[in-house]
Amino acid sequence: MNKAYEVVIVGGGPAGLSAGIYTARARLSSLLIEKGLIGGQVVNAELVENFPGFPEGISGYDLTELMHRQATKFGLETLTAEVTGVELNGEQKIVKTNEGDLVAKAMIIASGSEWTKLGIPGEKEFTGKGVSYCAICDGAFFTDQTVAVVGGGNAAITEALSLTKFASRVMVIHRRQELRATRIVQEKAFAEPKVEFLWNTVVEEIEGEEVVKRLRLRNVITGEKSSLGVAGIFVAIGFKPNTDYLKSILPLDATGHVITNEKMETEIPGIFAAGDIRSSSIRQVIGAVGDGATAAIYAERFITK
Amino acid sequence: MNKAYEVVIVGGGPAGLSAGIYTARARLSSLLIEKGLIGGQVVNAELVENFPGFPEGISGYDLTELMHRQATKFGLETLTAEVTGVELNGEQKIVKTNEGDLVAKAMIIASGSEWTKLGIPGEKEFTGKGVSYCAICDGAFFTDQTVAVVGGGNAAITEALSLTKFASRVMVIHRRQELRATRIVQEKAFAEPKVEFLWNTVVEEIEGEEVVKRLRLRNVITGEKSSLGVAGIFVAIGFKPNTDYLKSILPLDATGHVITNEKMETEIPGIFAAGDIRSSSIRQVIGAVGDGATAAIYAERFITK
Repeated sequence: MNKAYEVVIVGGGPAGLSAGIYTARARLSSLLIEKGLIGGQVVNAELVENFPGFPEGISGYDLTELMHRQATKFGLETLTAEVTGVELNGEQKIVKTNEGDLVAKAMIIASGSEWTKLGIPGEKEFTGKGVSYCAICDGAFFTDQTVAVVGGGNAAITEALSLTKFASRVMVIHRRQELRATRIVQEKAFAEPKVEFLWNTVVEEIEGEEVVKRLRLRNVITGEKSSLGVAGIFVAIGFKPNTDYLKSILPLDATGHVITNEKMETEIPGIFAAGDIRSSSIRQVIGAVGDGATAAIYAERFITK
Repeated sequence: MNKAYEVVIVGGGPAGLSAGIYTARARLSSLLIEKGLIGGQVVNAELVENFPGFPEGISGYDLTELMHRQATKFGLETLTAEVTGVELNGEQKIVKTNEGDLVAKAMIIASGSEWTKLGIPGEKEFTGKGVSYCAICDGAFFTDQTVAVVGGGNAAITEALSLTKFASRVMVIHRRQELRATRIVQEKAFAEPKVEFLWNTVVEEIEGEEVVKRLRLRNVITGEKSSLGVAGIFVAIGFKPNTDYLKSILPLDATGHVITNEKMETEIPGIFAAGDIRSSSIRQVIGAVGDGATAAIYAERFITK
């Protein structure tokens, strides 16, 4: 027999935890399913400075641990399992996992979206210690220092421009000879004296001690190798939403993210989405947490109506 | 000469403070204007249990004080003044206040929306001590107790139904003989044994000691007076957004709230809105704070594009 809940939440990052705080506190029987560790991507952040309420900052690990404790206190259950698919049976949602199937009246999809990694030595080791995927989050930590941005699309060049407010020098490292970013963004970057470009170049290794110190580079045309001293490297080469298990039932946008309205409703009544997995997420903890609360409130209204 | 800022934020509640944390940290010159005390309506909440990150709860005063300290640390300026109007001069926004005019490239409107008060003795004194305007926020504090809900619209009856999850008895006090709520909500309430109705009745006074103990009632047809013992009273008779100063430039919805899209953009480029003043706000601190961050991020993109 399938175990039944009023709300099943998929994903244990800030969006899912916030949703769980709200649904559990509203006395809806609630289960959160997470395949790995509770906390999501932000557990790698050594210091989150911009989550309102923590003027001295807080580590991503500590912040999500507090949220988990809060949700558990209100009665949220947690299951370690991987969701493999979702099926609809009338109004019921059948959540298929490697630990068995579950039944839910409402689902909140909060399984996140990972930044695409470079996949090179040093990247994982120095994540949160100079390697970042988010200038809004971490740019302020690199005041008057040299940083690199890897990528050539709108996201990368916008990040580079935003970093000029902090860094003394922003090196854009791109594996091609030209940018994919829109012309107006390109022109702005070319006009900005702090931004410099290393064309046809890839990063082969990130080196440092406690924190990032330098990058090992290779020119893909000439094969020439070089070294670049930086305090930080921002990787902006795309992202991969964790939506494989949804493909058969939910329409996704071109990048695989879930489309919602401002009530976090998807096209299927009773299925909501929250956080980075959403098409228009601001990719900030506070945004994810707001999304999670919103999804929970509308899930409660859906169930009780 | 008018003082110029990149971003002017109107309103010092959670939405405005969160916006200020984000714009100031992004090194945009930022001014927050608040006519009263920093913190907004939530300063009256003795315990906010559902703001993610505070498993033991936190008072509304302390929470917004932390946010203010955080924003100030990043360089947000604060001005105590009343905004009396907004004018457009090309791309510039002229913010008119009783302390002089200011010029902004972008504005974030976060001046809130107040719950309509009953305006009776005891209401102000016991706010946060049994008098509440939000069942999602405070319902959980009244487990197995008797509470009253004042009002007859959808908001009131939805609150009453939501309170049945906690309270042992929910008395709906309505000054008319019938509800304004939609039929399906009415039917649900009539079918719920915990919900009882006091028709043609108004609350004349809220009494208590440390916390609310009883209500003094009057039947508006017979004039008969009575007393009702309750631990809490939820007032749901509407709300008044603080948007008078915007009427001439921004289209508002039927209740006077500001219409935005999910990027918090209003109809006027460079003017954003966040928090309870928005047409579709969830009226929760965490939602307001998420809105504020979103508005700030899109305001930065607007300014730098």
